[in-house]
Amino acid sequence: MTEYYLGIDLGGTKILTGLADAEGNILASSRCDTQAEMGESQIIKNMIGTVNEVLEEVNLARGHVKALGIGSPGPLDTENGIIVESANIPWENVHIVDIMEDKLGIKTLLENDANAAALAEKWFGAGRDVDDMVYLTISTGIGGGAVIKKELFSGYSNNACEIGHTVIDPNGPLCGCGNHGCLESFASGKSIGRMAKEAVKSKQSGLILELADGDMDKIDAAICAEAARKGDKTAADIFSTAGFYLGIGLGNVVNIFNPQLIVLGGGVMKSSDLFLDKALEVMHKNALDASLSVLEIKKAELGDKIGLMGALAVAMKERLVENG
Amino acid sequence: MTEYYLGIDLGGTKILTGLADAEGNILASSRCDTQAEMGESQIIKNMIGTVNEVLEEVNLARGHVKALGIGSPGPLDTENGIIVESANIPWENVHIVDIMEDKLGIKTLLENDANAAALAEKWFGAGRDVDDMVYLTISTGIGGGAVIKKELFSGYSNNACEIGHTVIDPNGPLCGCGNHGCLESFASGKSIGRMAKEAVKSKQSGLILELADGDMDKIDAAICAEAARKGDKTAADIFSTAGFYLGIGLGNVVNIFNPQLIVLGGGVMKSSDLFLDKALEVMHKNALDASLSVLEIKKAELGDKIGLMGALAVAMKERLVENG
Repeated sequence: MTEYYLGIDLGGTKILTGLADAEGNILASSRCDTQAEMGESQIIKNMIGTVNEVLEEVNLARGHVKALGIGSPGPLDTENGIIVESANIPWENVHIVDIMEDKLGIKTLLENDANAAALAEKWFGAGRDVDDMVYLTISTGIGGGAVIKKELFSGYSNNACEIGHTVIDPNGPLCGCGNHGCLESFASGKSIGRMAKEAVKSKQSGLILELADGDMDKIDAAICAEAARKGDKTAADIFSTAGFYLGIGLGNVVNIFNPQLIVLGGGVMKSSDLFLDKALEVMHKNALDASLSVLEIKKAELGDKIGLMGALAVAMKERLVENG
Repeated sequence: MTEYYLGIDLGGTKILTGLADAEGNILASSRCDTQAEMGESQIIKNMIGTVNEVLEEVNLARGHVKALGIGSPGPLDTENGIIVESANIPWENVHIVDIMEDKLGIKTLLENDANAAALAEKWFGAGRDVDDMVYLTISTGIGGGAVIKKELFSGYSNNACEIGHTVIDPNGPLCGCGNHGCLESFASGKSIGRMAKEAVKSKQSGLILELADGDMDKIDAAICAEAARKGDKTAADIFSTAGFYLGIGLGNVVNIFNPQLIVLGGGVMKSSDLFLDKALEVMHKNALDASLSVLEIKKAELGDKIGLMGALAVAMKERLVENG
């Protein structure tokens, strides 16, 4: 009998749900607004709604679904299936696994989005040929997940790999987490946006403000990238600075994990032409030769599908390890 | 039939070899000078000599020894049993496992000293009740080893956990590895000694120089500790600075590994009263609550025996995982 798996990519603005066969081929998918502001019961109703839609689309009974994986921002208590908090959804201590299992009768697994993405790239993306890899997502924030001997490295309470919140300069900028000088405070989309705003305020770049239609609030990493590509030196320097610190972070990842592969994903990687060379140069200077000599660096392959493929990889992880 | 294991702690100045039963109780041990300057064949002769001595002491035939573990400074190629280099022994690419197996007829395993020490603390020391721990040795340098689900986390080419060479401030002091601002360049015994010398040169501390009998070359972390305990504020500040950066490093370890336990060992820990409170304060400020809430910090328990117990743990590791 064919096995089917469900994945739910649960974001602050949208819910994306997909059904896949045992090879990870997506057979149906459904998307809806999270309606985070409507509260827990509506969000769960929306999640269930998307599940029902994909099952109806292929006319499949729930009993044929082996497992449902949910990828969610954390912090989570994955062992007990609880969303402790989510940055963009105002709910707390939601026993999401119990709720979904109760309502759907399908075995449900919860994983944080960065870890799920790491699993997705390992099984369906850039890491499909390796057993040891670190995935780094460079988007609004910086998140990470590590796969060691094909399995997710979760740490003792499933909070490992917070690479974005390792301090790489205690005199650095204030990070969203409350510390100074985390990798995220130097090299994330948010921090590139912050540096761009600072440059505008100190009148170092007129072009950035122009591209933001004169609206400071619109300035972000994408606008800074546009300015850099149009020849704005200040904007280019901001990406170079971000690349420098990303290189420090990558060097630390290499020295700690000695991975076979580092996969770089996330929205900011769309501007990788502006910072990746610098990052790799610094990484090569900083990391130990013995680890560099076995290291590969690749860009993530799954693009916008990574959230959904991550949720599916979470649902399928036992099968994947057994057959992989 | 009782199983026996041999361990060789191979250092730059001495070789310490021990024989243990299957519970890790040391039945006999032998020590001799490494005679590193005499070259490979003499060093190996010395290693074999100590093995023969311990076997003779308890009148045991080689055939009763299940395995021999060697703990050595690296870099190593542990998979192929090769000492690539050793900081304090002028040899290169020594196929030590083949050589020992050939000469002794005993299955031999090689591991770097920090990893071996991590295994020793896990099985025989402060970590005996946990499955996930990070061991950090703060001595001349800073080394680390991680145990995940009872097994050593080695990385793809056995070079993982170089925590001492993660950069925590790119504007920091030059490290022995050639980079600036590695954890080791701030918080190791060597760096404490360097800061003490700098303080003497800039005439901030007379007591440090006095305790070193006026000899700059004698100034080290131990003398700085003595000065601090005698009320020298500069010396105390140096330890406080080292503690601050150690705290940054520990916070990063917590955020990356989310371990159940961190074990702190190494000679500098004899002065832990001078820096550990500061380090823990900074670690608690920097690490994520979700990981801190499950974390324990302990001092290493094995003291001077850690090198030998590490080598024995390497020899016994299969048995330990099976029975532990």
